[in-house]
Order: sequence, then structure tokens, then C-alpha cells
Amino acid sequence: MTNPEIERIKTALPGWVEAGKPFASEGKVASYIPELSKAPKEALGIALISKDGETIAAGDADLSFTMQSISKVFTLILALMDNGEELVFSKVGMEPTGDNFNSMLKLELVRPGIPFNPLINAGAITVSSLIEGADAADKSARILHFFKELAANDCLDYDMAVYRSESETGDLNRSMAYLLKDNGVLNGSVDDVLDVYFRHCSINVRCADLARMALVLACDGTDPLTGQTLIPRRYVQIAKTFMTTCGMYNASGEFAIQVGLPAKSGVSGGILTLVPGRFGIGIVGPALNAKGNSRAGVRLLETMSQELDWSMF
Amino acid sequence: MTNPEIERIKTALPGWVEAGKPFASEGKVASYIPELSKAPKEALGIALISKDGETIAAGDADLSFTMQSISKVFTLILALMDNGEELVFSKVGMEPTGDNFNSMLKLELVRPGIPFNPLINAGAITVSSLIEGADAADKSARILHFFKELAANDCLDYDMAVYRSESETGDLNRSMAYLLKDNGVLNGSVDDVLDVYFRHCSINVRCADLARMALVLACDGTDPLTGQTLIPRRYVQIAKTFMTTCGMYNASGEFAIQVGLPAKSGVSGGILTLVPGRFGIGIVGPALNAKGNSRAGVRLLETMSQELDWSMF
Amino acid sequence: MTNPEIERIKTALPGWVEAGKPFASEGKVASYIPELSKAPKEALGIALISKDGETIAAGDADLSFTMQSISKVFTLILALMDNGEELVFSKVGMEPTGDNFNSMLKLELVRPGIPFNPLINAGAITVSSLIEGADAADKSARILHFFKELAANDCLDYDMAVYRSESETGDLNRSMAYLLKDNGVLNGSVDDVLDVYFRHCSINVRCADLARMALVLACDGTDPLTGQTLIPRRYVQIAKTFMTTCGMYNASGEFAIQVGLPAKSGVSGGILTLVPGRFGIGIVGPALNAKGNSRAGVRLLETMSQELDWSMF
Amino acid sequence: MTNPEIERIKTALPGWVEAGKPFASEGKVASYIPELSKAPKEALGIALISKDGETIAAGDADLSFTMQSISKVFTLILALMDNGEELVFSKVGMEPTGDNFNSMLKLELVRPGIPFNPLINAGAITVSSLIEGADAADKSARILHFFKELAANDCLDYDMAVYRSESETGDLNRSMAYLLKDNGVLNGSVDDVLDVYFRHCSINVRCADLARMALVLACDGTDPLTGQTLIPRRYVQIAKTFMTTCGMYNASGEFAIQVGLPAKSGVSGGILTLVPGRFGIGIVGPALNAKGNSRAGVRLLETMSQELDWSMF
Repeated sequence: MTNPEIERIKTALPGWVEAGKPFASEGKVASYIPELSKAPKEALGIALISKDGETIAAGDADLSFTMQSISKVFTLILALMDNGEELVFSKVGMEPTGDNFNSMLKLELVRPGIPFNPLINAGAITVSSLIEGADAADKSARILHFFKELAANDCLDYDMAVYRSESETGDLNRSMAYLLKDNGVLNGSVDDVLDVYFRHCSINVRCADLARMALVLACDGTDPLTGQTLIPRRYVQIAKTFMTTCGMYNASGEFAIQVGLPAKSGVSGGILTLVPGRFGIGIVGPALNAKGNSRAGVRLLETMSQELDWSMF
Repeated sequence: MTNPEIERIKTALPGWVEAGKPFASEGKVASYIPELSKAPKEALGIALISKDGETIAAGDADLSFTMQSISKVFTLILALMDNGEELVFSKVGMEPTGDNFNSMLKLELVRPGIPFNPLINAGAITVSSLIEGADAADKSARILHFFKELAANDCLDYDMAVYRSESETGDLNRSMAYLLKDNGVLNGSVDDVLDVYFRHCSINVRCADLARMALVLACDGTDPLTGQTLIPRRYVQIAKTFMTTCGMYNASGEFAIQVGLPAKSGVSGGILTLVPGRFGIGIVGPALNAKGNSRAGVRLLETMSQELDWSMF
Repeated sequence: MTNPEIERIKTALPGWVEAGKPFASEGKVASYIPELSKAPKEALGIALISKDGETIAAGDADLSFTMQSISKVFTLILALMDNGEELVFSKVGMEPTGDNFNSMLKLELVRPGIPFNPLINAGAITVSSLIEGADAADKSARILHFFKELAANDCLDYDMAVYRSESETGDLNRSMAYLLKDNGVLNGSVDDVLDVYFRHCSINVRCADLARMALVLACDGTDPLTGQTLIPRRYVQIAKTFMTTCGMYNASGEFAIQVGLPAKSGVSGGILTLVPGRFGIGIVGPALNAKGNSRAGVRLLETMSQELDWSMF
Repeated sequence: MTNPEIERIKTALPGWVEAGKPFASEGKVASYIPELSKAPKEALGIALISKDGETIAAGDADLSFTMQSISKVFTLILALMDNGEELVFSKVGMEPTGDNFNSMLKLELVRPGIPFNPLINAGAITVSSLIEGADAADKSARILHFFKELAANDCLDYDMAVYRSESETGDLNRSMAYLLKDNGVLNGSVDDVLDVYFRHCSINVRCADLARMALVLACDGTDPLTGQTLIPRRYVQIAKTFMTTCGMYNASGEFAIQVGLPAKSGVSGGILTLVPGRFGIGIVGPALNAKGNSRAGVRLLETMSQELDWSMF
């Protein structure tokens, strides 16, 4: 029996991608490390997986890229699984900030000086410090293993060139981590925490990997293709809520209005999003708008949400 | 045929309200004008209306109170109906701020100096300036008429004592309005805009009124009991999105995590919320927490959302 | 008996003024009201009066202009004479802010929400509210009378076009005044306070008027040409200290390093400064630098301070 | 021939110190490292040296303490001697900030993100990076040598316990340094720069040492007792200007009004100040007021400035 929505997507998706691509020219590829600046500016790719396992791809879906901030959704989930809600939310708040993703203002201005939420950089660094493990290497190994399970892809690995560059140029993250440490938020060595953080940001994926990871969220923590429960439902709920209120940096409010789906973007141009109960979606489009989200990727999602009436609201 | 969810609510609601009431003792009744400070601190009341018109009430549901910030959801909708999305969002943004509801910081710090969203005070004042009408009195009349339709209550009226007090003590709102005017955001006379604003904040309601207004939102703009479409669906979508990302001041993120429903609170202790497609809900509990939301009301909604699995996420 | 410093100035001043004039091209004439924008951009004039009454002028010293923020030094002094130190400094602080002259940030961010010093706009508005008088007109009359005495010029009067324009376009000042009122800093009617404020900013002067007023400060409160004591010495000391730490907006620190004299500038391009015990100086150069100070005027003072070794430090 | 001012000081100083001591009870000894918290809370000591070499001491003048922020005046001077004005002021600004000494707000909010002045922590760290030397050890050796010359005390040395504690607990300074590095302000290794910084803050002195160092500033760079010129006059002028506008943290404005002398305080309770052309003064009083200045020390200076009419203004 065919699903008319899937048939519609199959037919229309190539055209939507083509219509979205020109918007890339309004954006800029991240260039703070050379490895990111090499990404093809005009690229736009997408992969969807339905809960029945049907996969649809279009555009430059085979491009590989690093997860960057998209990884933060899943380290948050792992930190929740490791520590429970109470401990995690004693270290990071639940509020959107209205500030840039790398802003440190509220760490100084608002008491207690904990990060406003786990998806801004200061919050994600804090979350990285909460992952269980004997040492930094062990924590990183646990994260990578968890991501492999979620993506059902045992080949996931780090882009070592990106990892090394992030680590070498990460002075702003280092500044943030020391401020968090001074505020009493961060335990352990700053160098170790940042190593864990830079590593999970540097995990290499393709759109299909993001789509499969998103599908687990879309299905409340259970991979519908294996039947395996990978995440407790409550933590999926928490993750989806944060993706809705804070997932697209300080353009999250606009994305909620225009698209209305839980999503998380990364500086490499990736976007992970989902249609609850139906689809996991991975997108890549390296040219970013001023807020740091894939310009063409956001446009493509606006089109799809409107055409397919996908907003949760 | 009985609806088991409704039966469950009928049975359990009085107990949930009783369990919520003690939390009021952790809160404080707003006291910036004498009229608000007279509200009974320990009160907690709730009314629900299902899409079939079944009404359930418990606690101090008969308490009357002013809408305050709850009105902002509906003036936003009216402004959208009067002007369309493009004009409205050239004057107010779509982002949560992380700041207090009456903060002016971002109006100075972030360019262009427009309010971050229509539900903080600066944004709501801007929205009030966008209501069509020959003069302030005409605009106020149109708002009141719209609210009467939504609440299906022709008796809605201003609490004139509250209106006068707000107007007399509204120096911070006046400051905000002049800053908006200086930033080129506000057209017309500051006094007129604030008169419209103070009036719609002073409209007197009971829980059942809020529930009925919320029911229209829960049913995508159509009052299910009359079949009348009062709001275009897109504007309901916009309103529900803002209620989710910004409806509970700078505790909206936490409310989304703990309750997961579109909601809007007011300084009088009211909360309007809804279960999409199913219920409109009005709550009153005058004792506020530090962020300005009804302490006992939030607690009651946390209980209900968890017991009835109501989170949208 | 000739004074060699005065002889040197007489000889060199025309050349210094000529050398300073080209710097005006780097600046911009204030244009927020039409009256100010009409000022000649390339003008630069100066008048000095020695304690022995010798007057030296050069360049466009005959240009007439409004005092603007320069008036704030003298309304502060009058407020101190009217109320004493204790009361005045319960309403305004003593600290430089590092922010723009019209910033409102610290009024919200720093408790208690009083202006950081009497020379930024928020502080000067507060000071205007402290002038004694039966009503706004009476207060303004007392200020004008005081200024006439200090300038030894009974013809000082308002530029009514500037006054009306300032008053009509003063939304930012109005915003500030209402925030101050909400913070409990400002007594009385905002409209009255601002009327007093806009009036004293609109008093018309020439360089020689500023020089004579400055001479009174240079001589510890006594006009050396009449022998009359117009200001108690302690209040002159307070005024000169504020001029040194806050007189040139958020370029006061640089001015102290490069010039090292107590000074106050205005948006019309005027600068009042003094060499303690020796000279009162008035300058006009309407083209302003980014911080709001006369570009050519600052340059001229840097030259004179270095050539004549005038820095107090 | 006796100097009446010196005679007056000799007679009155013990009484002024006694009258100042009780104010220590309003302050708190710095406790962020254990070594500082051991300082005697109730202590107050002072030493003055006149330009003729006459020394007057009273109270706990023999107490030894670390220079802390007082050292920043002299590392600034050394950086100016090493690099000239132009280079130094391309890395640090000249403006008071109005913020706490360890605030990072303006590094994020104001472009370019250089420290506002060399006496706040961010500025002093930047200055430390500008000291010439083959490596951190060499830079530190040059600083210590310079301080020994200025104090005419070859025995000056580090308090190694304070140095180690500062270094171990310096997360906020580390955060600041990495932010400066990210802003492109800081060259070289953050660890090296902070090592230089923590070392010069940990140099141990007594009041007489500060007084002698201050005397060199009071005499425009020449030690009047040896006749040796240790600092070019222009750099003394710059230092004294910064001491006046920024030397007492965000209480510099009030200190200028109430005392009116160039001064620099440290968190150990030390204050270095001077009467131009006449006296170098060193004070210690470990109990600090809310802004971080010696409570009793500031009081003592207020008394002396009023009694002896010392204000520069």
C-alpha cells in the first residue's frame, strides 16, 4: 500500500531542492578553520527516512560533513541517561537566550552563572563534562558508540583534521570553559572537557546518518527499523523540546514560526529535523545565514513544511 | 458515548487542584498596583472546555481577574488580521529573549532595535499600535469586541480601577514606548498606544472565558461550539508557536520541558493554555513565582500534563 | 609686564587653528534636528580669557551655537548649591560609565538604578529635576540667570528653534526620564523636568561666553575680573573632577591622556575647558567625531596642551 | 628649615590612622585564596616619603603584603618603555568602564574587543603580554628588577605561596586571557602571559616600598633621593592619568571627587598614591569595601585630602 505523502515527496523533492539551491548564494561558508571553508558553497542535499524504512534523497545527499552543534542534541541525551534530569539541570538551564550561540554575556550577567540551555556552546561544553567515563578518551568512545547505534552506522568516525583545527583554534570555547569553571559549573580539567567536546563536534556524517538518528527521535526513542529502544522516551521529549525552543541558535523562534519542527543545525551546514512519528530528516547546505544556519537548508524546510503542512503548531 | 480522558479529568481534577494549592504559598501576589494586591493569594481555579462543549471546573474557578499579558496573544492575532504577517514582523521579531518581560536591554543592544517578540511588554506595546481604528477609543472597541466573540461572552468589560491604576503607574511602559518611538518602531502618539495597551490588559475575565478563547485556538481558529471561524488558521499557528517559545516569560523554556503546551500567563495569576484539538483551559492562581507566572497554576499544569501525557513534544 | 605664555599663544594660535581645521573633515555635524545640521561643518573657533582679563580669539570665534551638554556642568553646580552634596549624590553617582552618553543599559543592569554620573544624559535630566523653583518656568529662569552671571553676559538667551526641535524630537530623553521615574529617581512631572532640561541645553552662546564661564571655574568659583564669588570652591572642585573623568562622554579617558584638562563638550560642537588658575577657554567646531566631541576642537586642544605643557597630570 | 605641612602630618597622622581603623570593620578581607584571607582585618598602616626624603609612618606600616593590582601601574609603564604609546594603545584603550575590575562584558559588547583600559584585569593581562623578554621567566625578571629600582629596595621578591595560589585558582583570568586571544589582542601563549601576570601581582612589599615607588611618579619619573631618572616624564603622565580615571576600580570617580589624587589599589588592601611634586604614599588596610578598595585606607585618604587640601581639582 502506498503512502501518498511519501509519493508526493518523491515526486516533488528534486524540484524543491533545485528551488532552494539559489538561496545558498545569500549565505557564507564557515571559515574559522580551513577545513570547513573547503565545503562546496552551492551544495544542498537531503535525506529522509520514513518510519517504515523508506529512504528518499535528493541533491548533494552524499556529501560528508562534520556534525558540529548537531551532536549536542545527542550528548545531552547521553548526559541525561548517565545522570538523570535533576543533576543535568542543576548545571544547565532550560531557557532560550536571544543571544549568539557563543555569547558569554549571560554567564556574567545572570545569577546563577550557568548556561541558559544545553544547545548554546557554553551549555554544550557543560554537557560534555557530564558524560560518564574513566577519562576523556573513554567518554569520547562512549559518545561515538552511542552515535553509531543511533545512526545504525558502525563506520562513523572523527574527521581528525577538523578535530585538530577546532582544538587548535578553540580559544573562545576555552575562554567559555574557564568562565564556567570559575562559576563552579564545570568539574574536571578544562582540557579534558574540551577534548570530549571538540571530538563529538568532529564526527563525520552524511545526510542519511542524520536522518536515521532523527528517526529515532521521531519514534520516541525506538529505532522503528530494528525495534530497539535506544533512548528513554522522556529524554527524547526533552531533546525535542530544546530543539524547538533553542535548536536553530537565536533564529529558533523564527524557525518555529516558519517551519514548526524540532531541529538542530551545525556550523558545517547540517540540519537534523524530524516529523514526529513519521520522518527523520538530514540536510546539508554549507552556506550559512547570519545566525549560523544553512541558508538553503532552512529555505528547503520552509518549503516542505508549508507544502506538506508539517508544523507541529 | 463517554470520553475516558474527560471522565478521568472529572474525577481527578479536584484532587489535583487541592494538591496544587499549597504551592501558592511559595509565590507572591503582584503588588505594583493596589488593585492587583487585593487578589486572594491562596486561590487556585481552573476551567476546561472540550471541543464537544463539555465544561469541567474546579477550585476557585469563579474568581474574576484581569487578562493582563494573556490579552497579548489575541491583540497579536488581531494585528495580524489587520495588517498581515509581513508588516507585523517588520515591527516585532520572532525570538525568545532570555530577559525579563519588561527588559529594555535588547532594544538598545541589538540592531534593529525592534522588540524581540510580540509577547514581551515592548513587543505587545508595538502590537497595540498596529490595531486598526480611527482613534484609541475605536481600536479599544475593536479589541473588546473581538475578545467578546472569542470568549462567546458579550459581558466582557474593563476593570476600570485596574485600567486607571496601570495607566497612572505605567512609567516603565511609557519609557519603553518612547524608546520604541525613538527607534522608529512605533507610529502615532505614545499616550494613545498606551491607552489601547492598558485597556486590553484590564479586561476582566473568569477561567471559563479563558478556556473558551483557548478552545478557539485549540481548534485552529474555529469555535467548535458555534462552527464559526473567528481566526485564520495560519494566525492561530503563529500564536500557538509564540505561546510555546515565549508565552511564559523567561520561564517559557522550562514550561515547554515540564508541560509542553502552548500557554500564556498574566501578572494577575491567569494562565491560558490548550491541548491541540481537544481542550481550551483557563487557570487562575494569583500568587506568582519569581518569573511572574502563577506558582500554583504552573504546578497544576505540570501535574496534568504528566498524568494525561499532554506534552506536544 | 608681559606674560610670555600669553604672548606665545597670541602668536601661535592662528596657526594652530589653521592646522586644526582640516580635521573637521573627518567629523560629522549633528543632524538629529535640522537646526543643528545647519552649522558650518568646517568651522573652528576659540576664545581664551586669562585671569587678568586678557582675551585672545582666533578662527570662527564669533559663531553662535547652543550650549547643549556643556550646560550640564553648571546645572550640576546650581543643583549642588540648591541641595547640597548629600542629596544630589543620592540621585546620581560619581562614576564614568564607558557607555554612550545616551545609554540606558546601566539604569537597568546596575542597582540602584540611578544614573552613573551627572554628565551623561540620564544624569543631567536627574540634575535638572533638582533645580529649585516654583515651577518649570521658574527653574529655567533661575538657570538662565545663573548662566548670565557666570558668562558676565546679560544677553544670553534661548535659541527657541533649537529648544522646540529638541522638545519635539526628544523621545529618547523622554524614555530615559520615564525609566528614571520608574526607578524612583525623578520627582515631579516628566514633562516639566524635560522642559527645564531642553531649555538649558538650548541657551545660545559664543566662544567668549564659554571662556568667561570657564574662567570662573579656573579661579575656584570667583570671577577674577569682578572679584565676585559665584560658586563655592567645593562645588567647583566637584565640577572640575567630573569634567576630567566624564566630561568628554566615553572619550573622557583618552582626552585626559592626550589633553589633561577638565573639559565639557556639547553636540553643537562646543567645548568648554580651563587651565587651572590661568585660563578659561571656549571652543566651537561643529563637526563631531564618533564619540560626539568636536573633531577639530579636540585636535586643537591636543596641540595646545602639548605645546604649552598644560596637562594637569 | 622645617616644612609646616610635614610637621602637621607628623603630629596628626597617628590620630587620623586611629580614626580610620574602625572603618575596617565595614570591609571584608579578600578570601578567594587562603593566603590573602590570613591578612589582619583590622590593620591600617601608612608610610609617606617627601621629595626631600623625609619618611613618616603610622599604624601597621610594617605589615608586608602583595602588590596585586598596584603592580599594574608599573607594568604599564614598562610596557610603554618597551613598546611606545602607539603599540600599547593599539592593544588597550584609555577609557574607564563603569564595570567590575574582572568584567568581560565589554570585550564581547564593544568593537574592537580590546580591554577598555590597562588597569582592569583584562587590560593588565594584555599589558603583561607586551613586556619584552626572551621568555616568561625573562619578562618576570625584568619586571622585578624594574620594581626593585623604583622601590630602591633590592630585596623585593615574590610571595611564592600567593603566586602559586593565584595561578591555581585563576580560572577567571584564564577565561579572560583566552577571550583576548580569540579577539586577536593577545600574542603568545596564554599560560606564559598569565605566569608573568600572576608573578608581578605576587611581589611582596611594605608601605615604605609603595611610598618610594609613588615618589618617583610624584617627581615626574626621577627619584629625587638619587637624582636618577627611572621613567620618561610622558609615561609618568600617562600613568598618573590612568590612576586618576581608573585606579580605584569602578569607584575611581568617587575617589577623584572625595580625594582627588592619582592612586591605585590592590586586593590585598594596598593603596599607592601621591601628592604631585611633594609626597609618595603607601597604605595598607586589608579589609576591602564592595568595590575592592581598602575600606579604612580610603577613609584615611579622604581625611588627609580634606585636612591638607590635597585634591588636584
